[in-house]
Order: sequence, then structure tokens, then C-alpha cells
Amino acid sequence: MINDTIIAQDNDRFHATLKADYDALGEHLDRRGIDIAQIKAKVSNYGVAVPSWGVGTGGTRFARFPGSGEPRDIFDKLDDCGVIQQLTRATPSVSLHIPWDKAPASDLLAKAEEVGLTFDAMNSNTFQDQPDQPHSYKYGSLSHTDAATRQQAVDHNIECIELGGQLGSKALTIWVGDGSNFPGQTNFTRQFERYLDATKQVYNALPDDWTLLTEHKMYEPAFYSTVVQDWGTNLLIAQQTGDRAKCLVDLGHHAPNANVEMIVARLTQFGKLGGFHFNDSKYGDDDLDTGSIDPYRLFLVFNELVEAEVNPDFNPMHMLDQSHNVTDPIESLMVSAMEVQRAYAQALLVDRAALAGFQDDNDPLMATTTLKHGFRTDVEPILAMARCEARGAICPVTAYRASQYRAKVAQKRPAITGAGGGIV
Amino acid sequence: MINDTIIAQDNDRFHATLKADYDALGEHLDRRGIDIAQIKAKVSNYGVAVPSWGVGTGGTRFARFPGSGEPRDIFDKLDDCGVIQQLTRATPSVSLHIPWDKAPASDLLAKAEEVGLTFDAMNSNTFQDQPDQPHSYKYGSLSHTDAATRQQAVDHNIECIELGGQLGSKALTIWVGDGSNFPGQTNFTRQFERYLDATKQVYNALPDDWTLLTEHKMYEPAFYSTVVQDWGTNLLIAQQTGDRAKCLVDLGHHAPNANVEMIVARLTQFGKLGGFHFNDSKYGDDDLDTGSIDPYRLFLVFNELVEAEVNPDFNPMHMLDQSHNVTDPIESLMVSAMEVQRAYAQALLVDRAALAGFQDDNDPLMATTTLKHGFRTDVEPILAMARCEARGAICPVTAYRASQYRAKVAQKRPAITGAGGGIV
Amino acid sequence: MINDTIIAQDNDRFHATLKADYDALGEHLDRRGIDIAQIKAKVSNYGVAVPSWGVGTGGTRFARFPGSGEPRDIFDKLDDCGVIQQLTRATPSVSLHIPWDKAPASDLLAKAEEVGLTFDAMNSNTFQDQPDQPHSYKYGSLSHTDAATRQQAVDHNIECIELGGQLGSKALTIWVGDGSNFPGQTNFTRQFERYLDATKQVYNALPDDWTLLTEHKMYEPAFYSTVVQDWGTNLLIAQQTGDRAKCLVDLGHHAPNANVEMIVARLTQFGKLGGFHFNDSKYGDDDLDTGSIDPYRLFLVFNELVEAEVNPDFNPMHMLDQSHNVTDPIESLMVSAMEVQRAYAQALLVDRAALAGFQDDNDPLMATTTLKHGFRTDVEPILAMARCEARGAICPVTAYRASQYRAKVAQKRPAITGAGGGIV
Amino acid sequence: MINDTIIAQDNDRFHATLKADYDALGEHLDRRGIDIAQIKAKVSNYGVAVPSWGVGTGGTRFARFPGSGEPRDIFDKLDDCGVIQQLTRATPSVSLHIPWDKAPASDLLAKAEEVGLTFDAMNSNTFQDQPDQPHSYKYGSLSHTDAATRQQAVDHNIECIELGGQLGSKALTIWVGDGSNFPGQTNFTRQFERYLDATKQVYNALPDDWTLLTEHKMYEPAFYSTVVQDWGTNLLIAQQTGDRAKCLVDLGHHAPNANVEMIVARLTQFGKLGGFHFNDSKYGDDDLDTGSIDPYRLFLVFNELVEAEVNPDFNPMHMLDQSHNVTDPIESLMVSAMEVQRAYAQALLVDRAALAGFQDDNDPLMATTTLKHGFRTDVEPILAMARCEARGAICPVTAYRASQYRAKVAQKRPAITGAGGGIV
Repeated sequence: MINDTIIAQDNDRFHATLKADYDALGEHLDRRGIDIAQIKAKVSNYGVAVPSWGVGTGGTRFARFPGSGEPRDIFDKLDDCGVIQQLTRATPSVSLHIPWDKAPASDLLAKAEEVGLTFDAMNSNTFQDQPDQPHSYKYGSLSHTDAATRQQAVDHNIECIELGGQLGSKALTIWVGDGSNFPGQTNFTRQFERYLDATKQVYNALPDDWTLLTEHKMYEPAFYSTVVQDWGTNLLIAQQTGDRAKCLVDLGHHAPNANVEMIVARLTQFGKLGGFHFNDSKYGDDDLDTGSIDPYRLFLVFNELVEAEVNPDFNPMHMLDQSHNVTDPIESLMVSAMEVQRAYAQALLVDRAALAGFQDDNDPLMATTTLKHGFRTDVEPILAMARCEARGAICPVTAYRASQYRAKVAQKRPAITGAGGGIV
Repeated sequence: MINDTIIAQDNDRFHATLKADYDALGEHLDRRGIDIAQIKAKVSNYGVAVPSWGVGTGGTRFARFPGSGEPRDIFDKLDDCGVIQQLTRATPSVSLHIPWDKAPASDLLAKAEEVGLTFDAMNSNTFQDQPDQPHSYKYGSLSHTDAATRQQAVDHNIECIELGGQLGSKALTIWVGDGSNFPGQTNFTRQFERYLDATKQVYNALPDDWTLLTEHKMYEPAFYSTVVQDWGTNLLIAQQTGDRAKCLVDLGHHAPNANVEMIVARLTQFGKLGGFHFNDSKYGDDDLDTGSIDPYRLFLVFNELVEAEVNPDFNPMHMLDQSHNVTDPIESLMVSAMEVQRAYAQALLVDRAALAGFQDDNDPLMATTTLKHGFRTDVEPILAMARCEARGAICPVTAYRASQYRAKVAQKRPAITGAGGGIV
Repeated sequence: MINDTIIAQDNDRFHATLKADYDALGEHLDRRGIDIAQIKAKVSNYGVAVPSWGVGTGGTRFARFPGSGEPRDIFDKLDDCGVIQQLTRATPSVSLHIPWDKAPASDLLAKAEEVGLTFDAMNSNTFQDQPDQPHSYKYGSLSHTDAATRQQAVDHNIECIELGGQLGSKALTIWVGDGSNFPGQTNFTRQFERYLDATKQVYNALPDDWTLLTEHKMYEPAFYSTVVQDWGTNLLIAQQTGDRAKCLVDLGHHAPNANVEMIVARLTQFGKLGGFHFNDSKYGDDDLDTGSIDPYRLFLVFNELVEAEVNPDFNPMHMLDQSHNVTDPIESLMVSAMEVQRAYAQALLVDRAALAGFQDDNDPLMATTTLKHGFRTDVEPILAMARCEARGAICPVTAYRASQYRAKVAQKRPAITGAGGGIV
Repeated sequence: MINDTIIAQDNDRFHATLKADYDALGEHLDRRGIDIAQIKAKVSNYGVAVPSWGVGTGGTRFARFPGSGEPRDIFDKLDDCGVIQQLTRATPSVSLHIPWDKAPASDLLAKAEEVGLTFDAMNSNTFQDQPDQPHSYKYGSLSHTDAATRQQAVDHNIECIELGGQLGSKALTIWVGDGSNFPGQTNFTRQFERYLDATKQVYNALPDDWTLLTEHKMYEPAFYSTVVQDWGTNLLIAQQTGDRAKCLVDLGHHAPNANVEMIVARLTQFGKLGGFHFNDSKYGDDDLDTGSIDPYRLFLVFNELVEAEVNPDFNPMHMLDQSHNVTDPIESLMVSAMEVQRAYAQALLVDRAALAGFQDDNDPLMATTTLKHGFRTDVEPILAMARCEARGAICPVTAYRASQYRAKVAQKRPAITGAGGGIV
């Protein structure tokens, strides 16, 4: 963890400016009839989970260029996640990936408590082969043609649930790469029947207070067809499987030009929106930093979420899922968590009564202007003040750099060498 | 209609060649264990509906360049459709579009009998305003914010059902342009609730032996969101509405790179595939001639349909839906109907037992080679022989050109002048 | 024109708030080392041309839904454009489209002076047939296989230059729909040779102080190939034609996922960026309001333009080109002009020395944060103050609505009826 | 190498069938005025280079699932490539990748002679870091901000030329992953200036009879911008660098919906088409087997190449570049080489005089039908007879499986274990 003095010193540099900006924004919002304190309170209560795998440097199929001081194991990763939470106060939980993060539950719980974190959704892995694994996932996992391979995948998911149960997690996220690379390689229907059958077995092993999240993705690693290729198939899975089966939306897993915010609305309407993997993308599943490419799209997603908040049962899970290939992962995750908060705060500023009125009156220009009014407001002072009041950093990146955390952990975490193929 | 002598004369030019090609193909297929006569019989029984609007020259928002001898009304259109069927023997029915084709049922039935056609699905139009229409569809139809406008759209659909009932049609196809051009213009959820409510009213007016087909489309005419934007939403409509509500798949209405054959498989698996609008596209809803851009994709769709044929209740409707901007529409529709037949014939040649074996064995190379073996076979002799035996033309285009049909109808159908259609 | 009293009254409602917001922003920017007055001065000097055709309601190939009080001719259009400039002070010029706007030069000049406008680039039209035109553009214009048709297109462009010369215009913009709808329809190479030959003829007729702007577009109205399909072909045209031949970039004319700001940079680097058609798009050439879908992309384009401003010879032309299907076109054009200004102002706020430093140091996180710092600043007070000081409206939309301009012109401009435009 | 007896035995199974099919096709083509022997002769002379890296199993950033008997080094790879050539007689040369394939030239030449192969274009690698490499390519290579890193990349390319010179290669292919993952990370213009400067240095080291091929790619591994992102930038490179600098087109490196055959035509027209990387794709740079997803697109590319063959100086290089993740790479490369030949043979069948006539007459329906007539002809008998006559296999896949080559080499090539990250 970072010494509180360093944070305090860094905050001192920005505090007067922040206060001036915050007060000015408060007056501005007051003129718009908005109480800045209420917005700040909601932002303070908002958190997004960090993926344990996100604190390692990512790569592509062509190469991975390691950074210095990379985490060696889940305990190093939890240290890094703790720093993110310490500085941003926006990431109170971590999402584990099994078997990458497998460790005794007591050790995980102890470390999490030490760094001030809890455990979010568990993630299983049936898209890679592990050493000594009897059956290969080369041709699929939950939907494999071979029953023993499917069973192995089911058993692995149940193992994830069991570990998660000890850690206080309440959800299992399943993403599979099953699909095909050639027309004809698989029979679409029989493959999906097998997938559904196996997924129901996993669902049946779920504790009563858990949610099963299934994740769709258009392509990659399969390049002709993917068994859970879009939200339509994901919806069918949730419908066929059970009430606690819901859909996870990864922002980067859709077809070019898809209207993702509309998919969010549809799944919400039918009670099947289970959660998010936030990131950004320009071309494919680029796993770029959230809000770095199209911040307005992120805002439009949060516009749907704020719209749905009136329903007290609406409570999707929020996670980051990114690949940090050229930045310090801690910095990227901090900035991304703040971008998520920013979109949330901007969406909170939208005058929803006015918006509904313009919609009813078919006044598209004023309706869209109403949205934009929320979006174009610079809410940074709200986010920064919320962090500051929670003993985080006004500017997490400068505080982090001032702390020399990376250089310090690099001393005990050996450098990784070799070209290496990217795994994220 | 075209004089049978002209067809016979044209066929005489090709008959010897056809016989040689057909015999050679028969011998080749025999070596593959396939009885050419059985394939020919299935092709002979196959038909695809022609859209009445397809026989007029289409255009874009920039311009329409009329051809000569364009049909003036539905009766001219039925003449043209009759010629298509006469020459190809592949298009026994016509799909009407109301109000464009509105006429007394008795007149329509008489004309259809005269030209040897029956009536396929009825199509309603709530994406344009008609003269003297009380409520405008500028801001939507079945999902409009205004109840009276929705009712007008519902009533129009019921009117289509009533006319169709007199004509022997058994299905209503609903496609709406409802959506929005700006983020915020509509509330996605409330808009879809209104759509569902109105569509259920239409469904309730459906005779017991009718099917309701709803059609999804990613975009155009709405450019930010469309209320039935993809098969996921279309599936929800069919699920919410009733057993006889099914999804219509227009091949050109999907996101870039979408795997359409997989969507076909999913809808089939869950009993919700209602029918097709065949065409081809490179960029958007280009409405190009079927099979002209990506014939293998068309084959892969038919591969799913042949796969599903083992279920005797599986009987989706097949229609062409194209815009012929630079060709004689009769020629394009004839060639397109034959391309549909070609894909069907090629799919029939696939060795399905071998394919299933390769799929079970995870032998993607041989599985895809098995599909390709069907696709790369030149089945033209089968199609041509089927036409010839049914008194159609061996080469419909040359027979049509020999008949000078277009020049003859141009004498009584006045030329259309003016730029038309242009909007920038 | 709108009565200045109405504008003044509307401004009175907002003036105190604006002053407070402007002062607060000035203080904030001062803390960032930026002089708000300098930014405001640059914004005040910035203008974007309005397209004459933009003040009419647009449509799609399916339908056009007219608004009330639509302009009947170029003189009505200039009235509407005058209102846009009067209220926004951001649109000092109009881009004409011939033959739609054809009229005696003296009349056009008199009207323009009356409404306070000048003339920007001239636009020719060889994508539609006009009554009494000898040769049809159905199969192309500048690249048509027939020499007489090409000559007709060349002559029309020269006619546009001649009229523009009398109007004080300094540029001709050529956009053609030439291409094909079927593989094989055209020979790509011979078609492009014809295009180049004809375009050189037009170029040779250009006055010495004029620029020739050619515009690329991926597709529509041609749906398989387009002769000027992308910036690569557009660059070849500019290279082959002459020094004053440059490329026009319409933001909506690119492939899905294309990095448009990079294309802007490349054309700038090689001296071939001639100008812009601003708009926004989600799917294709949607011609939506500028900045309405992806405001960050617009900002990134302006980031390149501000970067290039250091070169005193860099002076691309800026035009809006949109289709207003569901809004009052005057309102959309006002808001869009302000969005262009907004992106420009945000780009001016970027700390370019810091940015260059982060780029040289390979610090992507801080580089992108530096850009975002400009983007997320709410510059509305700067734009509004600039308008106010130039006797425009603080809030052009409310002032426009208060003026009842549309209702007033509707009294003398007859309503347009009929479905229009519909092609399926 | 495979025992000729095995090939002969396998051929015996198919020979009678092949003869019957070939004779029937010959008669059919004779009726179309085409001499089958001439087509066969052209096919026999046609060859496509195999990439050395293609004989290893590929993977994605998520996983790589090794096959059995994977090549351990370039000598094993050359053995595998020799088998591909032995069975297909369509792949006479191999394209090396340095440093992966680095070895003494004399050893490479000896092995190549042993297996009956020559060396095609050399490929450099500056998208991965090698052990003991002083400067990292994490932030670029030829366009890196640091001069020493650029020099290292230049030197590596020169080293590739030197080795290639000893091997009889006549071309260097440069593909770099340089780009950025964040808006602002790089200055597009300065980055491209650095790229051009470094590439000119490589060009200057080129022997007089060599060609420099540069390869564009839309994205991956860089996910926001790529320095050589499309053919427009690639053309600029070739123009700026020199006469022997030309563009390489990888079929999978374009934007969604791009018309690749048109790009081929443009580069050909301006003398800058240098060569191809053949493969197929559905979503991104999927590196799927050539012709497996859209065989008509491949045909349309070959239609351009056959069109251009009339120019005796037109001689682009043809290479496969694929990633074989789920098949035996030898099988995939054999089938892919045959698909390339198939497209070439089909394109040779097109009646070019008739096509040109239909193009001049603006008869799109007959023009496209003329193309399709070539495409839909099943030319397999021509390809198989050409192979058979050259002592290859009539059916390379069955002969290969009969040979048990893979099982045999697996005995001496140890199994690769571990999950491993995919590098291709």
C-alpha cells in the first residue's frame, strides 16, 4: 500500500484548485436546480470491480511486452488492486479468475482484508488447457462433442463456485471460446444443445443467493462462429437456464456499429441484465481503457442504467475487463474506474422529467440536447472531491507516480523476459 | 405473357448442350452416389415468392432512374410476375404490398389466375404517409407515442389481413421503420412496450391458419436506433406475441460481419423461424440481387434449411426482396430466383451423414470440404432441365430478350420522367 | 430575419447565468494557464459553411416526411440560412448546389447581401437526371462509358464554375455516385481512367485562385463499387490532376471502424486536404447532426486541424452536410454549427507542448489524458459569450422558437403533401 | 517426404473417376469454345509460396492448442513444406521469417534442394522483442520515437536482405505493428515521417533486382491507430520510397465491407501492386484458410489478376499467410493452395471479350452472369489432372492421411505442452 503521507502531500498540491472548481460547479449546478452534494454522495457509493488479470501487462497473439514489477501471483495482484482502491476509492472489489488465481480461501481472505478489498464475481477458464488436464478444450468445452470434456468443464465451474462461496462471492461468470473456424466444422444446433445442457448443470450447483452470468462475444478465439455470439443467444441461455441466470454485457463484444445501449435496455426490460465488463474498443475486442475511444457511448450506457435505477431490484454487477498492453496497468485501471464514475455522474445530471417530456412530444432536438447537457458538464470536481473526502487521491495518477510504487515492487518482483505470446 | 413458341425456339438453341451437360452431371453424381433425378424433383417443387414491388425499378435517396415500360399498377406488376414464373417455373406466388397494390380482391384473383400465380404473404406499409391519412408516421407507427397513430397502424395491418384472407394468403409480414435518429429521441423501453402492445392487437386479428412475420433490421430509415433492430428483439416479439408469431430474416438487415446462417439455425431451433427475404448486400441493406455478392453465404443459409427439412413441421416462407436500380427488374428477379434454387440444389448435394461424422470427430478440414463439395458442383444443368421439363426456358434471360416483352409493354405503359426520389 | 428585439429578450433570460459561467470558466482556465479571451477570439473568427440543401427536410429511399414552411427555392433557403447565421454567428457562408439553386447571379448576390451571407464552394450534380437532359446518368457521369455523357457532366461542372465565379466562390466540389451494383458491371481500371480524364477537363476550366475538391464515399448510391471509394483513390485523383486539386473528407463516407482523424492527418501531411463535410453517423452515410453520435471523434478531427494550424498555408474549407429527417432543419444546423465550434474550442485547450512531450516519452496514459482534459472542459460559456458579443443568441434554439419564424414562413410557403421519395 | 508408392496407390483409387470428370469437363468447355488443355497448362505453371510459419499450429491471444509432431525448427518446417509441394505441385517456394528461421544459408539451401523448394520473399520481424535485443519494440520499431530503436529495426531488415541474397530470394516484405492504443499516444504525422525515413534506409540497402513489399493492416496489434493502416498509406510509402517499392495486399487486413478487388485494381493501375498474402476472414485478421469463408471474393481478386496478365511486366508475388489453429497445418496449406489455383482457373474461364462488351453496353446483368459463368464451373478435374500429371496427388488430403506423415514425424518431434500464448 502507499504511504498516506504521500497521498496527502500530492493532494495538497491540488486542494485549493479543486475547492475552487468544486464550488464553481456547485454554483453552476445549483443554477440548474441540481444539488451537487447529492450527486457526490451517489458517486461516493459507486464502485466497479477490478479484474485480477487486469493488473498484469496484456498482449496480443503477436507479442506481449512485459512491464517492470509485474505481479507474480494472486497475492501480488491483490496488492496492486489494493493500491487502485486506495487511490481511487472506486474499486472496492476484485474479480478472480480460476485457475490463474487459485489459492487457499483463507489466504485469499486474509490478503483481501489486508488491502481493503472484497471479492466480486468468480470467473472460470475453459478456453485454455492447463497442465495435467485430461481433456483438451481445443475443440470446445461446455459444448464439446465429447461428454467427458463437457463434464470436465462443468466440474471446473463448480469448483469455482465452491471457492467463491468461501470468499463471499455471489456470482459466477462464464465465458467460453467455443465455436468454429470453418463453415461446417460444427452443427450450430447440436452444439448449442450441448452448451445449454452443460450450463444447466452448472446452474444447478449454484447457491440460492448466487447469479450465473453468461457472456456473449461475436468472435475470437473462434473466427467463423461462436456458440454464444450475441445477446440473442445469451438471452436464450438465460431464459432456458433459470431465474438467476442473467446476461453479462462486455462493451467490446459486439458487431461493428451495434447499438449497445439498446441491448442494455432490452435485457433490462426483460429482467435479464446481469452485469457488465467495461472497456472500450475501436475495431474488435480491443479491450482498451474504458471511455478512451468513445466516451459518449459509455455515457449512453449509463444513461440506461440511471433510467433503470428507479427499479429497486435492478442491480447489475459492474466490472472492468481490459488488456493493458502499453501502459502501467495500475494507472489504466485507476483512470478507467474514474471514467466509469464520470459517465455515471454525467448520467445523474440528466433532467429526466424534461427528457421524458421531449420524448413524448417527439422533440428529438431538445431530447438529445438534454442528454448532451449532462454529458458535456465537467464533473471531475465531483469525482475528485469524493475521492479526497474518502482519503483517496485527488489525482490518483500523480500520487501513484509520486509514490514510486512500481519501482518498489519491481525490486522484489523479478523481471519477466522473453518475447512471450500474449495471454490476457 | 410470352408466346410459347418463342420459348420453344430459344430452348431449341440450348437443348442439345443441356442434355449433354445434364447427362454428364448425372454420371458424375452417380459416381458420388447421388441420384440426379431426385435432386431435380426437389428443385422442381421448390418455389420462391416474388415481391410485387420488385418489378418496378428501384432507387436510392439520391435518385431513381426509371426503366422503360414500368408497371403502372398491380395488374401490370402481376403481368410481369407472370412472365417471371412462365420462364423460370420457380416463382409461383406473389407477395403484395398494401396500399401500393390495393385493388378489389376479385380483380386480383382473376388476374392472378390469368397469369398463373397465387398470393404469398401480405405486406403492410406504415413507413410512409399516404394522402388523406389522419396521422403521420414521421415519428413512428406501431410504437408511436400517440395512441391514435398506433391505432391507425394497427387498423391498417388488420385491413391487410382482411384483403389477404380473400386472396388466399396465409401470412402477414410487418416491417416498420420506427426508431430514432438521435440518442435520447426515444425511450427504448417505453417504445418497445408500445410496439409489443400494438403488435399483439394485430396478432389477435389473425385467422387461425395465418402466421405473423415480423422483420428485424439494423438501421435505415432510422439511423440511431430501430425498434426491431436485430434477431434478439425479433425473438422477444415472437415469444411475447404468440405461437403463430415468427421471425422473418432479410439477409441484408444485419450488422457487418454477422453470421446470418447461425441466426437462421438459432431461430429454427426454437421454432421461431418464419421466413426469408432473399437478396444480397455488400455494405448495408443494399437489396442487391440474391447471390450476386456472396453466393457461398447463400449456400450456407440453405445448408441450414436442408438440415432442418427433416422436421416435417419446418416450413418457412421464401420470398425475394430486392431493389433493381440498374437492371431490368424482370431479368434480375429471374436470375435471383434461379440463384436461390441453385443454393438449394447445392445444399441438397451435401453428404449429411459424412458431414455429421466429421463434426463429431472434430475434423474441421473434412467437414468444410464436405460442404464445399456440394457448393462447387455446377448444378445449372439440373435447374435448366427442371425448367425445361416444366415448359419454362432453359435460359430465361435469352428467351425473355428474344420475346421483346419489355419493348412491347413499353408501348402501352407510358415512360416515367423526372428525377424522382432525390433527397440529399 | 428575426427581429433583434426577440433575440435581445431571449438573451436577457440567460445573460446573468452566462456571465457567471463564463467568469467561472475564465478563472478555471486561468488556473490552467489559458487565457479565455484568446480562445473566445479564435472561436469568434471561426465559421462553417451551411449547405443550401440542408434547410429542406431530408428523407430516405423509403419516405420523406416534410416539415411545415419548407423553403420553395434558393431564395427561401437563403432566408433560412440567414437566420442560422443571425442567431449563431458561426455560419457566414452558404454552399450552393447546382442545378437545384440555379438563379441569376445578380439575384443571388442581392439576396445574400440582404441576409448577410457569402458563397462558399459550389456543388455540381451529376448523380440525378434533370428534365430535358440529353444523356442519363443511370450508368455514370464523369466515368460513363459513353463520351457524350461524360462531356455533358464536364460541361455541367464548368457551368457551376462560371456561376460560382460571379458569386465570389473559390472552389468546386465534385461528388459523383458513379460505380456499380454488380461484380463485373464495370472494369475498375477503365472506369477510373475515364473519371480521371473528365476530371482533368474540369480542372483545366478552373480559375487560378480556385480549388477543386473531390469527395470520396465508400458506397451509396452504388452498392458494389464506387469509383472514388476511399481516400486512397481520392489522393490519386488529386495527385494526377494538379496542385489545386484536393480531397474533401465527409465524416460519414468511410468504412466501419475507420480512423478518420488519421486520414485527415495523412492528407494534411501531403498537402492534399481540401475541406470537410461535417456530419455524424452510426451505420453508413447517415448524415446525422454533427457531433450527435460520437462527439469525441469530432474533437479528434479538430485536434488534427489545430495541430496543423501552425502551417499558415493550411486552410481547408469547412462545411456542414447533413440530412434533417426528423428535426426542424434550421435548429439542427444551428446546433451542428455550434458543435463544430465546440470541438474546435476544446481542441484549442489542449496543452500541445505537454502532449508532444508525452508522445516523445511514450507515455500514452498521460498523452491521452492531455487530450481528454481539453475535451471534457465545458466550453459552452465561451461559445455563448462569443455569440452574444456578436449580437447572436446566447441560446439560438430558444430564441428561434420564441421568434416563431417557422410558423411565419409557413404562412407564405405552401405545405408539401404526398409520400415522396419512397422506393423499396 | 512421402513415399511415391503411397501417392500412386492413392491416385489409383481416384484415377478413373478423374478421367471421366476431366473428359466431361473438356467436352463441356469445348462447347463453350475453351480448350481445357490450355487452362490446365496455365494452372500447372501457377504456384503460390508457403509461409514457413504456417506449418506450425497457430493460436490466439487466449490460447494455443498445439498439434502433434509440430516442427521444431526451420529444417522441420522445410520438410513439411516439401510434403505440401510434393502432393499439390502448387507450392514450389517458401517464404522465410527472420529471426524465427535464421540458419546458415548453406544449410538452408541444402535442405531446400533436398525437399524440392526455392525461397520466396524474406520477412523481417520487428513486432516482437528477441532475447538480448538492446531496444524494445513495445512502442514501435521503424517509426519509434527513439533513433536507436529505429536503427536497430533498419539493421534487422538489412540482415534479412543479406541472408535472402544468399538464398536466391528477390524480395523483402515488411510488416510492422507500429501504431497506438490511445488517441494522442502518437503524433500521426511525425510517426509516419519517421517510418518513411527508416524505410528508405532499408530500400537503399536493396539489391537492384529486389522488390520491397510493404504491408498495410487496419489494426492489431495496435488497437487505436496503425502507421500503415490501409492501402492509401501503403501507396504513399511506395511512392515516396522508390520504383522497386510496392504494396503487399493481405486479404484479411482491411476494414469491414471493403472492396478488396478494387484496391487490387487501383494498385495494379498505378504500378504499385507488389504481391499478396492469401487467406480468408469473417471478422478481422482471422487468418483463416484461403477461400474458406468467401470463395467468390477470392475469385474476384483473381479476376483482376487475370485481367492484368495482358501486361507482361505484371508479376505480383503470391503467398499464403494463414494461422491454422484447429487443423493439421499441412492439410490446411494444401487445401488453401488448391483454392488459390481454383480461383485462378475459374478466372481464366471468363469470356473477357464478352465481359468487356457487356461493360461497354452497360448490361450489368449479363456482365455479372459472365463472371459467374466462370466461377460456377467446377474446375476440380483440371486441378487434379494437373497435379496427377506432375506426380502429385489427385486428392492430396487422402494421400497425406494415408502416408501417416504426421504420426511418423511426431515420433521424432517431441510434443509441446503447456497452455502457451499464441504467436503466429
